[in-house]
Amino acid sequence: MSASMKAETSETNAIAAMAREARRAARDLAQSPTSVRDKALWAASAALRERKDEILAANARDLETYSGTESFRDRLTLTEERIEAMARGLEDMADLPDPLGRVLAEWTRPNGLKIRRVATPVGVIGVIYESRPNVGADAAGLAIKSGNAIILRGGSESFYSAEAIHAAMVEGLRAAGLPEAAVQVAPSADRRHVADMMSAAGLIDLLIPRGGKSLVERVQNEARVPVLAHAEGLCHTYIHSGAESQMARKIVANAKMRRTGICGSTETLLIDAAIAPSLLPQIVEDLSALGCDFRADARAREIVPMLPAASEADFATEWLGAILSIAVVDGVDAALDHIAHYGSAHTESIVTADEAAAMRFMNGVDSAVVMWNASTQFCDGGEFGFGAEIGIATGRVHARGPVGLEQLMTYKYEVIGNGQVRS
Amino acid sequence: MSASMKAETSETNAIAAMAREARRAARDLAQSPTSVRDKALWAASAALRERKDEILAANARDLETYSGTESFRDRLTLTEERIEAMARGLEDMADLPDPLGRVLAEWTRPNGLKIRRVATPVGVIGVIYESRPNVGADAAGLAIKSGNAIILRGGSESFYSAEAIHAAMVEGLRAAGLPEAAVQVAPSADRRHVADMMSAAGLIDLLIPRGGKSLVERVQNEARVPVLAHAEGLCHTYIHSGAESQMARKIVANAKMRRTGICGSTETLLIDAAIAPSLLPQIVEDLSALGCDFRADARAREIVPMLPAASEADFATEWLGAILSIAVVDGVDAALDHIAHYGSAHTESIVTADEAAAMRFMNGVDSAVVMWNASTQFCDGGEFGFGAEIGIATGRVHARGPVGLEQLMTYKYEVIGNGQVRS
Repeated sequence: MSASMKAETSETNAIAAMAREARRAARDLAQSPTSVRDKALWAASAALRERKDEILAANARDLETYSGTESFRDRLTLTEERIEAMARGLEDMADLPDPLGRVLAEWTRPNGLKIRRVATPVGVIGVIYESRPNVGADAAGLAIKSGNAIILRGGSESFYSAEAIHAAMVEGLRAAGLPEAAVQVAPSADRRHVADMMSAAGLIDLLIPRGGKSLVERVQNEARVPVLAHAEGLCHTYIHSGAESQMARKIVANAKMRRTGICGSTETLLIDAAIAPSLLPQIVEDLSALGCDFRADARAREIVPMLPAASEADFATEWLGAILSIAVVDGVDAALDHIAHYGSAHTESIVTADEAAAMRFMNGVDSAVVMWNASTQFCDGGEFGFGAEIGIATGRVHARGPVGLEQLMTYKYEVIGNGQVRS
Repeated sequence: MSASMKAETSETNAIAAMAREARRAARDLAQSPTSVRDKALWAASAALRERKDEILAANARDLETYSGTESFRDRLTLTEERIEAMARGLEDMADLPDPLGRVLAEWTRPNGLKIRRVATPVGVIGVIYESRPNVGADAAGLAIKSGNAIILRGGSESFYSAEAIHAAMVEGLRAAGLPEAAVQVAPSADRRHVADMMSAAGLIDLLIPRGGKSLVERVQNEARVPVLAHAEGLCHTYIHSGAESQMARKIVANAKMRRTGICGSTETLLIDAAIAPSLLPQIVEDLSALGCDFRADARAREIVPMLPAASEADFATEWLGAILSIAVVDGVDAALDHIAHYGSAHTESIVTADEAAAMRFMNGVDSAVVMWNASTQFCDGGEFGFGAEIGIATGRVHARGPVGLEQLMTYKYEVIGNGQVRS
């Protein structure tokens, strides 16, 4: 038996059957012209608007039985504005350049063989997500644009919302003459579909978990298929001794407090001993005024004694809230050591006017994103110019950082000869 | 706890301890200049030559207790020539351009942020291999050149050979002032080291199994870390009705018979019904003369009745020997369908003088490598100009096709601002 056949799960669960349909659909999608995939996005966008009432009704049905936290309820709730945002998102994707078929490299061998590496879709993508129903539309749109088939499994609490959004996406596919199996949703709220997606080796090519820590960790630990995980962002802002004070204050306030709940928000401030006595009191004042609390090491507390003491564990904590860990360090290497020890390899930033120090930091940081004189909150597909994103990859293979269209691609080699044989 | 710390296995086995050392070494290696890594390769090459007698003695010790097949024994055996080939391989790697720090893309955002995507090492690579001791030197050389730390686990039957080669690699690292932990070997022939490598989540970033089908499948099924697998190559050569007969005969003979045991050898011939009556008898004669046997479908047997009949399973079999499956098809689409159904997405080739047919085939084949008028046996890192390879990736994410230096890289984003904050 061939590897591809062998690798497939022998199970015949609903997800496996859907994935086989998806494989066929992906083949059609990958070969469809740009204009056809874009037409599907425009038509799906129109369908979202037309089916607005239906989607809101489905969402109301989900909310009726929902009994969790208020913040989760907010994420689960759809409004006319949120549906309009989904619809506009699909139109924006239609306007992006086609990622398929892009020649990534080409060269000619001494024997005359022409070789080129060409971008192709990954194939069948699975997305397991929680609460926010818009993830379904965004992910399906990115998949259609990038020529991938997709299987969506939303949280059981958003089952009816996900179904209603799915109907609009299918209407878009149908209008463009593309196979409906290109976008599928798990057929029930049954939790076993998650397990079936995780074990769909050879059927699902890439699994993307979007949601809380426990979901992401479970998928990372249990999946038998490649995973593009969006795990924690324990981001650092490091103020070097050569930093311009006003810039440093502005960047730290934004990096920590613009939105505290996103993965690109700064959790730890590292500040050089040489500049801390003059600058740290100002930063503490700035952030206190914005409602921020602190956990500081002993050296920082020597400078600002009112700061609460940090424990070792605090420096390894992603607060996702208005708390800032603070450590005083001695120069770039000490900052790099701290980041290597406590960080999650997501996003780090140095503030300095010293180019040599900035270069040393940017080379030394081994994170998906490293910045110089900018707020860590810029780690975002939209801010990077990707147009749309499906998360921030925190692993080290296939893709790192914001996951947009390009990160949903793989490649193949095209080799053109004129009768060459290997000697 | 941060994601990186959380993701780590809490176990404290020998492999986990080695991987933590490897992580630190990888950090140094990634920041070392090209010249230092190249110096390590030159010194390791020299050490392989100087330690020749020692390596041969270690190999003799392995061979003494070996009791398997003759072909396996041949792969296990080292000779002066084979040691010289390893040494030259390392020198060739030193001559290749540095893959680190290459700018893969760069752009400027409307807000003035400069963003660039830069090639960085994956980090800590694990290689589990069987029999051929040269894999240890090749893989270690590629790792050093690409700034990755590596943990090698050879087969228990080649334990002493692997240790002797490892000593030469470490001598090279030492001569260049690089950390010895950049290249490590499992400390004993104990099979549990394989299990420990497979479960080293957060410690080993990428696992590469090199060896027989059962090894690769076991790693694919059981590993808790990303795997770059070299699975089967069920490659097809498709002779289109527009093929030039002499070219087709030459290519098929080479694609099947040059070396039958490599993954890029052709296992199935697809031939158009329009050209089969005139061409198939010649091809059968050509290949019979070279000692090839056949498994043919009913339509092929109508043309050459002496051909043995193929079963359904034969078309899904990677022969890795002098057997060719043959099917007569009706045009490009039928060939594409056959390949999609039975293939392993490794390498396929079309022979034709018809450019439109070639384009349709090249677009329609969803394999790592698709060729036009060339032998499938060209699927090889050396033939692609990669200088050295560690296998052919048959998965769909991170890398496809020959795995050379570039495929052992990931990337990070460098973002340069002048005080930007996110609004």
